[in-house]
Amino acid sequence: MEKLCSSFGLTVRQLREARGWSQEALAEKAHLNRSYVGDVERGNAVPSLVTLEKIALALGLKISDLLVHCEKLRGHQIVYNLNLAAIAC
Amino acid sequence: MEKLCSSFGLTVRQLREARGWSQEALAEKAHLNRSYVGDVERGNAVPSLVTLEKIALALGLKISDLLVHCEKLRGHQIVYNLNLAAIAC
Repeated sequence: MEKLCSSFGLTVRQLREARGWSQEALAEKAHLNRSYVGDVERGNAVPSLVTLEKIALALGLKISDLLVHCEKLRGHQIVYNLNLAAIAC
Repeated sequence: MEKLCSSFGLTVRQLREARGWSQEALAEKAHLNRSYVGDVERGNAVPSLVTLEKIALALGLKISDLLVHCEKLRGHQIVYNLNLAAIAC
């Protein structure tokens, strides 16, 4: 479950940086606190459904699209970790 | 935002009933409290990302798929409400 929040945070960071936005800019657009956005991006906060919608709307996405990004990233991370484990064996 | 939780709750109820499951059965599969599942279905609780995953996994769906269902239902509700408003005019 913790890994889900880390993947979600990384997703938000990637999508924000792809838009050239600072955390402050995203926080303002999403009507969230800047430090809370930082916590989400570091995987240190468990966002609620309402927060997911705020972030998705700020990024110009549907919530489901935001989660698709997160699930893809998570899939890549699992493959990466499996590869690392294979190298270590 | 409140309407989002109502739509999400209705989505969960529909998907649960489509499987012929009781709230107790869904709660057990999702490792959640039965009364909390009831609150979610009535739109009286704001589920976290972790809870979304628990419910999605219990229903055999990805979180993004669960949200797609919710967004479709919400779209239908908006159209329905617009039609009602048009009739009232």
